Amino acid sequence: MLDTPAYAAADATTPLAPTTIQRRAPRAREVLIDIAYCGVCHTDLHQVRDEWGGSIFPMVPGHEIVGRVAEVGADVTRFKIGDAVGVGCFVDSCRSCAQCEAGEEQFCEQGMTATYNATERDGSAPTYGGYSTRITVDQDYVLRVPEALPLDAAAPLLCAGITTYSPLRHFGVEAGDAVAVVGLGGLGHMAVKFAVAMGARVTVLSTSESKRDDALKLGAHDFAATRDPATFEALAKTFDFIVDSVSAPHDYNAYLSLLKVDGTMILLGVPDQPAPVAAGSLIMQRRRLTGSLIGGIRETQEMLEFCAEHGIVSDIEIIDIADINTAYARMLKGDVRYRFVIDIATLAH
Amino acid sequence: MLDTPAYAAADATTPLAPTTIQRRAPRAREVLIDIAYCGVCHTDLHQVRDEWGGSIFPMVPGHEIVGRVAEVGADVTRFKIGDAVGVGCFVDSCRSCAQCEAGEEQFCEQGMTATYNATERDGSAPTYGGYSTRITVDQDYVLRVPEALPLDAAAPLLCAGITTYSPLRHFGVEAGDAVAVVGLGGLGHMAVKFAVAMGARVTVLSTSESKRDDALKLGAHDFAATRDPATFEALAKTFDFIVDSVSAPHDYNAYLSLLKVDGTMILLGVPDQPAPVAAGSLIMQRRRLTGSLIGGIRETQEMLEFCAEHGIVSDIEIIDIADINTAYARMLKGDVRYRFVIDIATLAH
Repeated sequence: MLDTPAYAAADATTPLAPTTIQRRAPRAREVLIDIAYCGVCHTDLHQVRDEWGGSIFPMVPGHEIVGRVAEVGADVTRFKIGDAVGVGCFVDSCRSCAQCEAGEEQFCEQGMTATYNATERDGSAPTYGGYSTRITVDQDYVLRVPEALPLDAAAPLLCAGITTYSPLRHFGVEAGDAVAVVGLGGLGHMAVKFAVAMGARVTVLSTSESKRDDALKLGAHDFAATRDPATFEALAKTFDFIVDSVSAPHDYNAYLSLLKVDGTMILLGVPDQPAPVAAGSLIMQRRRLTGSLIGGIRETQEMLEFCAEHGIVSDIEIIDIADINTAYARMLKGDVRYRFVIDIATLAH
Repeated sequence: MLDTPAYAAADATTPLAPTTIQRRAPRAREVLIDIAYCGVCHTDLHQVRDEWGGSIFPMVPGHEIVGRVAEVGADVTRFKIGDAVGVGCFVDSCRSCAQCEAGEEQFCEQGMTATYNATERDGSAPTYGGYSTRITVDQDYVLRVPEALPLDAAAPLLCAGITTYSPLRHFGVEAGDAVAVVGLGGLGHMAVKFAVAMGARVTVLSTSESKRDDALKLGAHDFAATRDPATFEALAKTFDFIVDSVSAPHDYNAYLSLLKVDGTMILLGVPDQPAPVAAGSLIMQRRRLTGSLIGGIRETQEMLEFCAEHGIVSDIEIIDIADINTAYARMLKGDVRYRFVIDIATLAH
């Protein structure tokens, strides 16, 4: 086993602090990755604080991991030492169910193995995430990061990127479609970039005017403030798709009213409480309310290639790992444009 | 104008009673239909009692109309005297919007003209429905009833039939799919027949065991009582589609949990109040919650041909028009298997 510096939460109420974890030497089909950067996802905070229940401590968060291959097992064919690679939200799955065979490992019928806050499939150990200097992962769950992409700003693509790219593709966004992005945070700003690159006409819907300039800079064609009730009248039956990245409670029916006939609203955020949906909101225009969960390995790789082709990365603020607790506090206030990325070089090797 | 016997509600609280309305002689592109039968839809009751607001009185309900062509205008090409025909939920639309051009007149951007409780597009008169001996309708909004179908049991196809056929087709039910039908009433029993004819494996979900035998007689492959919480555990992640015909309040999340990954739940009933939906119910398996509204003229014709080919009609109870108020009272108690159809011959000519 390899002594590996990391940052961990000892329990749900203690700030993250330095520790040392063990990584295994790569087995035949595994690669050992020297982590260069790790994005900070709101999920990290939810799980560190055990807000969803069932958290496993000590916890090393982080599932937006990029780095370079340091070592490969004997049977590794897809990677060689020095390759730029990434690891996203899961590091394993059953590999034999219909979903795994379809390349939709995120929906593995046995449950995917999360990159952290989970247990290895053989039951041998907890999984630890990217707030650490290295990680050992089966090659089938490792992504190739195109050399055109800067490693730091590419890190959030592994979660925020695929979470927004996948539904746009899966539900069939095409050039010319009218797409609304609700909420302009880590997810929303990626949704804008992807939808624009796909040729959609993109409108950002955000509570206040304060994000108008940013929305337009990100490439959105239009912006509307949802605190103004007139917005919902003016934009009624306007959109083919709504990508809803908001986790705070909000009125789904009001947003559904903005969809055209056969329009689709895609939920990415999970409010604390269920929200009322009026059957008439769906029936009268045959609208669809759906959700989407990250993406499979094949689609994540496709997304990375799409990013390289279209020059898309995340807008990031690089932080020192020692500042992670401060970053969490700022994230809670929405004070990040648009993703914190930890420079793992700041974790002593 | 043609004096026409009918049954009308004078206002929201008075029982239906005999009256005489005026029908116009057919214009160049119109047909005059002698009505033989008219189905009784729960919508009739809602609107007669002004439960949705905006009802227009006096009201002659009825939008499941079948009969024979009695007279044709000079430019009518599609029908001749004596043809068996039907009229469903609407008798006109704008004919020029994208939805009308796509044959989805039910979503006409200007609003379709309902068969009753509406106003003719030229503003000349209220529309009156099928609780009457004849009706004058533009040929483009008249359906051909295949001679293989009995007129009485075909009447409910014009609303209950297309309301259930359309979503099964639109959302892509295929042979071998697992389809649940929630609620076994006028809509539900048609959904079972159609889904079975399409080759799906059909399970009826109903509150109590009392409808098990009927469900199986209708062709369903399986039945489960939803009053038993174990049903929701046993059938978790089982269905590709759920057709939900229930208008009483119920827990959408519980039903969503029965869908597989990428499964679709189609709402046809409109509960009084919005129902809470948990984002996680949709996100974790990428499920879709949607609704559907009758169907366009082209699809309604296709449905009638499908019925002729597969020997599908509604299960009905024929009533005398004088018994319509009693029928409403029984319908409210769910005491009908599965559709009342008025024999319009009982309305004196």
